[in-house]
Amino acid sequence: MEDTLKMTKRVGVSKICFKEYHLPLNATDELIASTVAKCKSEGIDLYSGGVIYMKTKEQVDGAFEYAKKAGMRMIIGVPNHELLSYTEKKVQDYNIKLAIHNHGPGDKLYPSAESAYVLIKNMDPGMGLCIDIGHTKRINRNPEQDLNDFFDRVIDIHIKDVTSNDAKGTCIEMGRGVIDIPSFLRTVVKKKYSGVLSLEYEIHADDPLPGMAESIGYTRGILSTL
Amino acid sequence: MEDTLKMTKRVGVSKICFKEYHLPLNATDELIASTVAKCKSEGIDLYSGGVIYMKTKEQVDGAFEYAKKAGMRMIIGVPNHELLSYTEKKVQDYNIKLAIHNHGPGDKLYPSAESAYVLIKNMDPGMGLCIDIGHTKRINRNPEQDLNDFFDRVIDIHIKDVTSNDAKGTCIEMGRGVIDIPSFLRTVVKKKYSGVLSLEYEIHADDPLPGMAESIGYTRGILSTL
Repeated sequence: MEDTLKMTKRVGVSKICFKEYHLPLNATDELIASTVAKCKSEGIDLYSGGVIYMKTKEQVDGAFEYAKKAGMRMIIGVPNHELLSYTEKKVQDYNIKLAIHNHGPGDKLYPSAESAYVLIKNMDPGMGLCIDIGHTKRINRNPEQDLNDFFDRVIDIHIKDVTSNDAKGTCIEMGRGVIDIPSFLRTVVKKKYSGVLSLEYEIHADDPLPGMAESIGYTRGILSTL
Repeated sequence: MEDTLKMTKRVGVSKICFKEYHLPLNATDELIASTVAKCKSEGIDLYSGGVIYMKTKEQVDGAFEYAKKAGMRMIIGVPNHELLSYTEKKVQDYNIKLAIHNHGPGDKLYPSAESAYVLIKNMDPGMGLCIDIGHTKRINRNPEQDLNDFFDRVIDIHIKDVTSNDAKGTCIEMGRGVIDIPSFLRTVVKKKYSGVLSLEYEIHADDPLPGMAESIGYTRGILSTL
């Protein structure tokens, strides 16, 4: 977790989403408090947690308690379909948003952003989407289509690049894969998206910093040009 | 040198300019040959060497012999003014170009690209400029002005960013400094510059890869958007 914060600072990023291995879902109050304090002292905003899977009511309860204790304003989550109404109530009670994360071809719950959108589009506005542009590309759809079609519910975005536009596609440094990132970011700017662009860099687990830095640089280069 | 090649490959770059600490100017023929062979086996083109200072005829002779043995097509150099005619003859004899490198405020020989341009503009076309956009910014001039004004002699470009537009400016990750890189690269594309954009990353000497990667990513992001 300290390494993660150090690398995040090095690439000049000030917001972070923690996954379980940064801060376990069953962490004690003390561990949560000390972790949050570390983020604060490093000037990094722990705005969200996830991706968190929720297959039972207890897991929904646990996720929202965890997020509340850590001061997170958003859960990037994958609740079972039958738990969406229950989750919606939690979103209202806790005033913490839920961003449902699409996971691409083969995923049983939310293969596409659309598969989540149709279930939540009439729910509380706190029920939203975290569009994962890599998984969207893996169903051979251009990520800007998700933004255009489901924009009213897009509250978080996972940016990355992938090696191919099908189920075989895996993560790669941004700009080296098949996603037209300039086209996607042009749409982000055009739609006046005001949420976070969150780099999800899933390769080189033992030495992620160079690829993270290249991807962040690539994104900044595009945004500074648009 | 091996580390340099490894990092260069990691960021997906295929051309390199070696400085003395990668390959000493007085290297034996054997060392030069084995170094060139390593570059080739890694798929990296050792297109140039420098910055090489030339204060005497012997140093000019040495630089061109060194470049010839290493198969370099260009020397990024700083010859004394009185050696420019002598250097021009070497350029013609060896068919190796010379790109004079500007070094910013306080430099006695070539503080600006202009200070070199006025001396070589009527010489052999192999006498050119390596525009260092950081040092240009440090004399409070926008690098695209160099491109526009001296384009007929620009044969190499050192890209970087700097912290301020005066003598105090030092190197920083591209996109984090004061140079308007999108504006500069827009001019590079508009002028149809066909040479190399060579990242000169001069900080974090013990751990340069993340900042190199961020800078390369930033440049690629801009170029993919223009």
